[in-house]
Amino acid sequence: MIVVGSGAGHLEEEVRALGGELVEVEIKKFPDGEKYVRVLGSGDEALVVQSTFKPQDENLIELLLIGDALRERGFTKLRAVVPYLAYSRQDRVTKEGEPISVRAIMREIGLYYDELYVFDLHNPETLRFFPGKAVNLSPARAIAEYFKDKLGDGVVLAPDKGARARARAVAEKLGLEYSHFEKKRVSPREVKMWPVDIDVVGKNVLIVDDIISTGGTMVKAANLLRARGAEKIFVAATHGVFAEGAIERVSRAVDELAVTNTIPTPVSRISIVPDILAL
Amino acid sequence: MIVVGSGAGHLEEEVRALGGELVEVEIKKFPDGEKYVRVLGSGDEALVVQSTFKPQDENLIELLLIGDALRERGFTKLRAVVPYLAYSRQDRVTKEGEPISVRAIMREIGLYYDELYVFDLHNPETLRFFPGKAVNLSPARAIAEYFKDKLGDGVVLAPDKGARARARAVAEKLGLEYSHFEKKRVSPREVKMWPVDIDVVGKNVLIVDDIISTGGTMVKAANLLRARGAEKIFVAATHGVFAEGAIERVSRAVDELAVTNTIPTPVSRISIVPDILAL
Repeated sequence: MIVVGSGAGHLEEEVRALGGELVEVEIKKFPDGEKYVRVLGSGDEALVVQSTFKPQDENLIELLLIGDALRERGFTKLRAVVPYLAYSRQDRVTKEGEPISVRAIMREIGLYYDELYVFDLHNPETLRFFPGKAVNLSPARAIAEYFKDKLGDGVVLAPDKGARARARAVAEKLGLEYSHFEKKRVSPREVKMWPVDIDVVGKNVLIVDDIISTGGTMVKAANLLRARGAEKIFVAATHGVFAEGAIERVSRAVDELAVTNTIPTPVSRISIVPDILAL
Repeated sequence: MIVVGSGAGHLEEEVRALGGELVEVEIKKFPDGEKYVRVLGSGDEALVVQSTFKPQDENLIELLLIGDALRERGFTKLRAVVPYLAYSRQDRVTKEGEPISVRAIMREIGLYYDELYVFDLHNPETLRFFPGKAVNLSPARAIAEYFKDKLGDGVVLAPDKGARARARAVAEKLGLEYSHFEKKRVSPREVKMWPVDIDVVGKNVLIVDDIISTGGTMVKAANLLRARGAEKIFVAATHGVFAEGAIERVSRAVDELAVTNTIPTPVSRISIVPDILAL
């Protein structure tokens, strides 16, 4: 049984179309701003899908309230699917006095849920903060399928070394070559970057990352690839946490920008719903 | 050491003026809407003051992040003072499938805090959901002091039988008589109400309640008291969760409306800060 929260309303139609058994929920806000939830179904196990993009705190509290309602209703096993996990980039203390915010959020979810499923977590090591079983799902299948025909016998690139495993996962599904961009700071304001050990001349290229916010790196990488003679340039990311104007900036610099639907955006054309239904 | 969150910013100046030792905190929002907190101080025990009025979910998550930061910084004992606790009226399942939302919130706070202090909780029985020590503080001292001179040898009334203990607490501090209004539904749309066993002719009256939202009951009670010959009529409540227009409606019907500063409103003239500093 699947429960869809406010933060996953954009996935509901596809969940239903693909045969997911949905439990109806009533979700509203009182005039004072408090959320009200009510679960109209009973059972033993439930999969609660709730992405936690903006307003992230409301979506997090709603996930808690749905958990309480399901426990009260007698559900014994609850799995939370949080396609985009808020606070995942606040994963370490960089200045004394800071929290590890993602830890607090994982503990909060752990109050009611036995298992947690997220997509392409910024720092997978932080999964250890969840008190139960926690799984980091890969968007590689979805991204590979979406770009298969467009990419042809092109190559897959990561924008930096840290994202190399992401590029590899997509490339392997397509039987293509992959590599990453090396970066070097050449002055306080300038970072030089170049693709390592790979020939892009006349080839289609897909650049893959976890999150796009300003899109600055992607635009720079695309311009570099053009200058080096790449054919078509595509950009894919799991989470489209776009800053103002970022979609337009990246779209102008590449042949196509597409992200998954962990967050609903105008370019969320790659669906992770089949991966959720496979759980 | 006292840490003041965004939901208690309106109390900070008075905490400082009354000698509270404040720990500086940096609180901001990232462009994507995520909160960032940083605690600029160290120690062993801290009292974190955070009221959770609208935007209540943001204030709740911020309380969690402050807790994580303090634990990370080495604090061993944390007490949360939540003057107004969000979701406190969602205290029972009235329709199958609902959560007991206040339980979820108390458990969430219990992830990081050893003790919880709230003011005039809607249903004090729900304190049992907090995993540690939980205390319901009374606003009676603050309300009694504020209205002492204005009320003179008047009487204190509760708007219904359930709030009678609240009226008694204030009356006893002032050495005055107290009672409550009895209510009876006389038709589907009409409820009759009258003050029980007390004479209000020529007397000043203070009506005391926990929360005012629409203010409908208070206006009705005030009009009844006027018709029965009461002198001045005052209304006090702990939490001013005012619906649109409620302050004006009640103010027009009485001589003075004043609430405590658990929630900042234009009529939050009664301070609970001394009670916090006494903890």
